[in-house]
Amino acid sequence: MNASTPASGRLSVVGLGPGDAALMTEQVRATIAAASDAFGYFPYIERLQGLGHLQLHASDNREELDRARAALDLAALGRQVLMLSSGDPGVFAMASAVFEVLDVATPEQVQRWATVDIAVQPGITAMLAAAARLGAPLGHDFCCINLSDNLKPAAVIEKRIRLAAQADFAMAFYNPCSTSRPEGFRRALRVLAEECEPGRLICFARNVSRPDETLQVLPLDAVTPEMADMRTVVIVGNSMTRQVGQHVYTPRSYPHA
Amino acid sequence: MNASTPASGRLSVVGLGPGDAALMTEQVRATIAAASDAFGYFPYIERLQGLGHLQLHASDNREELDRARAALDLAALGRQVLMLSSGDPGVFAMASAVFEVLDVATPEQVQRWATVDIAVQPGITAMLAAAARLGAPLGHDFCCINLSDNLKPAAVIEKRIRLAAQADFAMAFYNPCSTSRPEGFRRALRVLAEECEPGRLICFARNVSRPDETLQVLPLDAVTPEMADMRTVVIVGNSMTRQVGQHVYTPRSYPHA
Repeated sequence: MNASTPASGRLSVVGLGPGDAALMTEQVRATIAAASDAFGYFPYIERLQGLGHLQLHASDNREELDRARAALDLAALGRQVLMLSSGDPGVFAMASAVFEVLDVATPEQVQRWATVDIAVQPGITAMLAAAARLGAPLGHDFCCINLSDNLKPAAVIEKRIRLAAQADFAMAFYNPCSTSRPEGFRRALRVLAEECEPGRLICFARNVSRPDETLQVLPLDAVTPEMADMRTVVIVGNSMTRQVGQHVYTPRSYPHA
Repeated sequence: MNASTPASGRLSVVGLGPGDAALMTEQVRATIAAASDAFGYFPYIERLQGLGHLQLHASDNREELDRARAALDLAALGRQVLMLSSGDPGVFAMASAVFEVLDVATPEQVQRWATVDIAVQPGITAMLAAAARLGAPLGHDFCCINLSDNLKPAAVIEKRIRLAAQADFAMAFYNPCSTSRPEGFRRALRVLAEECEPGRLICFARNVSRPDETLQVLPLDAVTPEMADMRTVVIVGNSMTRQVGQHVYTPRSYPHA
């Protein structure tokens, strides 16, 4: 091997799960232990402490495409590179960003990255960790919507929520709102109020699986926009979703009209 | 402690992941190791070999409610009981069945089960394992639909697929068909053909994460109903889903109309 024929490196796009290290898969833990470098948003890099002997490359959360290019460049040199996501990398996270970068690569980048072995390794995504803590609110057909209008028009989000309500899907909302985009959840509530009965169950799971986790379940007509922040996953029941004791569940069966 | 005040037992409804033991979480592995009894469908019980010292209670896959009652009864005697699901217990699996049984419990059962601590522990569900192997086809808003009409009317399934297509969700189909219900995926394809362009990408992941895993990606107009069986998860791209090299991904961003 010499400088003109580098070893084939690997880029592993891994999901760390929602927070609790016990929710990480053994596959991801082994991949971290064998890696040489890790790229990711600052707070995800912090979660690697004690899990490997890694060179760390932390970056801000608006720099996904640059981060993906830098990780591919390093893997092309023969390194074993991690790209970190919280939750699952395929759900509103880094996996799509890596493939977007490959899709628009220059001919020079295509050639440079050709030897890189790319693997996506799943993790427990926030909505499924939240659902487990609540009971089984996603036990029937459901959908998963990112409420941020950073990368799509607000009108598309509203249309999706409206059609999902008409289809009587349960729904999980990611990124219900943030400091820079406070309107997401307020808009969603307006559509839900138009499409759903006032008693529809709305579940809030904040910092799920972490020591400061909070869970809250309310009927739609008692919900206010400020109940969700950027650390909250919101789960909207379907018309059949019920409470039994401390738990919320959606029945497996659905009635005939 | 005496016979009239039994120890408080625990029922842990756990997800084993899609097949590969490395996709199990450390939480579930530890819960299995500490349990006394395990209930589940025969093939899931087989996956426990070497993971604990358990009394095994295997049953057929049409006996979910009886299985849940038996597990609660045993936990009420102070045992540490597992209820097994493949994938994630909250996605078309045993978690809802356990809460359904609690919801319709007789007063005598309510009293008997009152001391049981019930916990749901998430696992990697098949669609997210499949998405990771394919690339990132669920990287934008998506929905998850069980195509079996065992517990809901076929008309509800068709309506949901139609509205999901109109909302331009990516979709994951569970239980696309089975020997006893061969029509599920054929009906879904008919709706997709009416609502989507002929080149829409359809992904088939069969036995995902197992040694005999197969992956296939085709445009909608090349798909035939027999391409999916009960061991297949089908992922339907949205209108933006693309291939790059061997991978399929859905971009994070969505265009303005």
